Amino acid sequence: MSEEASKVISLAVIPGDGIGPEVTAEAVKVLKAVTQDGPARFELTEYQLGAEHWLRTGETLPDETLEALKGHDAILFGAVGAAPGDTQMPSGLIEREMLLKLRFSLDHFVNLRPSKLYPGVASPLANPGDIDFIVVREGTEGPYVGNGGSLRTGTEHEIATEVSLNTAHGVERVVRDAFRRASERPRKKLTLVHKHNVLVYAGSLWKRTFESVAADFPDVETDYLHVDAATIFLTTNPSRFDVIVTDNLFGDIITDLAAAVTGGIGLAASGNINMEGTFPSMFEPVHGSAPDIAGQQKADPTAAILSAALMLHHLGFDAEAERVEQAVESDVASRAGNTRTTAEIGDAIAAAVS
Amino acid sequence: MSEEASKVISLAVIPGDGIGPEVTAEAVKVLKAVTQDGPARFELTEYQLGAEHWLRTGETLPDETLEALKGHDAILFGAVGAAPGDTQMPSGLIEREMLLKLRFSLDHFVNLRPSKLYPGVASPLANPGDIDFIVVREGTEGPYVGNGGSLRTGTEHEIATEVSLNTAHGVERVVRDAFRRASERPRKKLTLVHKHNVLVYAGSLWKRTFESVAADFPDVETDYLHVDAATIFLTTNPSRFDVIVTDNLFGDIITDLAAAVTGGIGLAASGNINMEGTFPSMFEPVHGSAPDIAGQQKADPTAAILSAALMLHHLGFDAEAERVEQAVESDVASRAGNTRTTAEIGDAIAAAVS
Ligand SMILES: CC(C)[C@H](C(=O)O)[C@@H](O)C(=O)O
Ligand SMILES: CC(C)[C@H](C(=O)O)[C@@H](O)C(=O)O
Repeated sequence: MSEEASKVISLAVIPGDGIGPEVTAEAVKVLKAVTQDGPARFELTEYQLGAEHWLRTGETLPDETLEALKGHDAILFGAVGAAPGDTQMPSGLIEREMLLKLRFSLDHFVNLRPSKLYPGVASPLANPGDIDFIVVREGTEGPYVGNGGSLRTGTEHEIATEVSLNTAHGVERVVRDAFRRASERPRKKLTLVHKHNVLVYAGSLWKRTFESVAADFPDVETDYLHVDAATIFLTTNPSRFDVIVTDNLFGDIITDLAAAVTGGIGLAASGNINMEGTFPSMFEPVHGSAPDIAGQQKADPTAAILSAALMLHHLGFDAEAERVEQAVESDVASRAGNTRTTAEIGDAIAAAVS
Repeated sequence: MSEEASKVISLAVIPGDGIGPEVTAEAVKVLKAVTQDGPARFELTEYQLGAEHWLRTGETLPDETLEALKGHDAILFGAVGAAPGDTQMPSGLIEREMLLKLRFSLDHFVNLRPSKLYPGVASPLANPGDIDFIVVREGTEGPYVGNGGSLRTGTEHEIATEVSLNTAHGVERVVRDAFRRASERPRKKLTLVHKHNVLVYAGSLWKRTFESVAADFPDVETDYLHVDAATIFLTTNPSRFDVIVTDNLFGDIITDLAAAVTGGIGLAASGNINMEGTFPSMFEPVHGSAPDIAGQQKADPTAAILSAALMLHHLGFDAEAERVEQAVESDVASRAGNTRTTAEIGDAIAAAVS
């Protein structure tokens, strides 16, 4: 680094459960390497949260911890989840009370998930073509709001509801973000994915908002796909996509499919981004805690490392982010037949960006 | 046919829009051929319904027509949908006011969608393996009930909701149907697909119901996948599936993906089945009306013909259904490089079953 002093970034690290700590350690290693004489210096604070922490303490995400997290510039997140066969943790509890609580409390309305097929990576598709698109998934509304209930539970007269909540405010800001991202990419193409022929009220809000924001981005080409048709194109012609914007649940589904066609969730990064800057954004691999291989140095840290690169972009360190992405791309290209530990992969990428 | 007199089946035919009439004609041709000296004789009544009918008359599904349809033994349905660029028909209107209205009014709670990769058919997957599973999609509940609304519509304070309704009655009957179908298949494996870690109320009802019905089918092996993970397996290891049971929206999404990996919706058949027999069941190809190729004899009638085979099974004519399926399988295996008209394909399959 030349003239400027390096900027201190206060980073919260939540390693979590299973392979979370292993992959997060490599992401931190790469972050440090790429910024060692660069513009950023990371000050790390580790937070013990997750299923294991819950088992020990009964806490998922205490209010004080949430408040403390709000004081950081960004959050790096590993993975959370109970070990398989664990009968103590109610299903989905840690996901909802911690992961989703963070996304909602910190107003992470842009859930950014790039899908890129790197050279050398095997796709399950016979003719994948060039795949390089991003999904902008809404992160704070939709069927994820936890707004449902059940009546006469456990009887033959039970009725259970789930309410999808969608607001003009919530839809507008994420659609606008997607248009902005599309306008900055070479192809400038944005696809809205929904199911407005069936989900008429939510679908109409999404469609009208999409059309009205489009007027502000005349250089962005737009189209629309029902979510069912989108899964067909993701399998038969994923190259057609540049940027996709969609709701929280459809985004959950299509980003796992997108990860699959680009070689698996071992490579899929994500950012939970608060574009208004009111709270810190959080970066996490799409994969889960994979307790079956935890602690064995078998996990692929690439998704965690690419999530750290998304964080560098978000914090404005584009050059450093691109160095990490380049190093990952080269590393991935040389992997065939080559078994390395989690740390060896992290070391190689860290060395390449140093 | 030997001793028994042939049974008269009163069949309603709704050809619909676009390629609907062409493909339905071939399905009827094959039905007649396979039963010509067999146990069934079809008496056809054609109903003009669909987007074109709406444009001409303003009617989607009049009450008298619905009542008349209830008097038939079964319904064969082509496809409906407005022509692209048609600005008169509100988006989704014909789908909701006619197709979904039929499924709901006739209590089609089992939306049965087989996925089979036929020999000779190209899958977009590099290593598809043997694919042969069925999806039992719930057809009368979930987010498809049209139970939502919007407030302050068109303003920056708009809020739009969609309510997913799930009942013990509705979930139990479709889960039980799926267990029965699984128990009759060689592999006897049933996978529940939902998202119970996020959609806790609906998910809990589905999960508890699944577990309790499982007790009545001890020979059926069970597992559970979140819908996002299911899309990964459908792409990376579709052979793992035997029978899938899922809700209306997840079923819509994963059956299009399943059709894609088995060579496209040109081959995907479906039945909207009322297993209680209170109203006639309806059989339809999964594909839409494809107005761009309508009237040109370019449409593949295979999905419509396979839907007719599902109808034969449902009506108890298993031997005839299997003859149609066999004929389709042979025909499909010989298709490479061979361009035939819609009618030529229908003729070939009809000849093979005669
Ligand atoms: C763990 C789960 C709550 C989460 C989600 O559904 O969003 C995950 O699937 C994801 O995509 O990040
Ligand atoms: C046309 C549409 C309403 C329908 C659905 O969503 O069920 C279609 O996609 C299907 O799968 O049959």
